[in-house]
Parts: sequence; C-alpha cells; structure tokens
Amino acid sequence: MIRHVVMFRWHDHVDRAAVAALDAALDRLPTVIGEIVSYVHGPDLELSDTTFDYVLVADFETVDDFHTYRDHPEHQAFIAEHIVDTAAERVAVQYQV
Amino acid sequence: MIRHVVMFRWHDHVDRAAVAALDAALDRLPTVIGEIVSYVHGPDLELSDTTFDYVLVADFETVDDFHTYRDHPEHQAFIAEHIVDTAAERVAVQYQV
Repeated sequence: MIRHVVMFRWHDHVDRAAVAALDAALDRLPTVIGEIVSYVHGPDLELSDTTFDYVLVADFETVDDFHTYRDHPEHQAFIAEHIVDTAAERVAVQYQV
Repeated sequence: MIRHVVMFRWHDHVDRAAVAALDAALDRLPTVIGEIVSYVHGPDLELSDTTFDYVLVADFETVDDFHTYRDHPEHQAFIAEHIVDTAAERVAVQYQV
C-alpha cells in the first residue's frame, strides 16, 4: 500500500469557514475517485507552536492508483478551488505501508 | 488516539549509512518508551521531486503520553545523535484519529 501524507500551513487570511468548506470538499473526493482506499484529514491539534495547520493521509493500492488520483479532474478542481489561495506551504511524503 | 506525523528533509551530506543508523535507532525507541502505541517510519518513495525525504508516524493514547515521549531522555538522545546535524528541515502535525 502507498500512503500519501500532505501537510499544509494556511495563509493568515484563512478562516474557519474556509477550512470547513475545504474539509467538506475533501470528504466528497473518495466518493468520486475510486482509487482512494482510505482518506483521513483534519486540523492540527495545536499541541505545539511549530506544527503545520492541517494534514491529509491517503492510501492507495499502487503507485498507478496514486497517480490517477493526483491527476484526477475532481482532485485538480479541489486544488484550484480550496488550496491554491489557501495554502502558504505544502509538504508531502509518499511511503510504503 | 493522537497521531504525530513528522517529515524530514535531510542535508545534502546525509548518506545511506546515516539514514540506516537513524532507522535502527528509531526501531529501538518503542522498546524503551512504553507510551508509544505504534511507530512507523521510513524513506520517501521518490515518486515526486517536491517531497520530503523521510516520515515518522507515531500513535499515542493521550496527549500526556505524547508529551512523555517528546520529553523522554531516550527520545532527546536520539534527536541529539541522529537529527540535529542530519535534518535540514522538519515539519510536524499532531491530529486525532
């Protein structure tokens, strides 16, 4: 299984409503992208000052499935609508589980 | 459950032997820090140019257990020996699972 982990740090202008809308849009993606096996996402718990603001953990059976997801029009539309003007920083790792 | 996710980007001087030593040191930590419920770590799969180099995912029953781990002398010794001169960047998130 390929696990894809992404962390975001939001711009200062990003409010709770924007994160709630993004959250709802993420909830929808596994219903329209069949390659997603597991999709967990949510805000940082703010236990530390140095953390990022949000995390997404997605599992895929194969690297091909991960690429299908990455390039999927619904995923790209999500990025355009909810990430481009929202995320000040994005970091990611893919690893084998 | 509290999930703690950390990503590292290594300095250019870091070689496979250094990462192997770090890997082995991480394998040891759950044997000496009882608060660790699950401890998964490994290198990025290099599916993308923009990813970090290494990820660690640790689960704890409570925030207190996470703090005990964070401040544990064995964990601090690990950081001093294997992270301080190795990691160019470190990002982290803690979230509820």
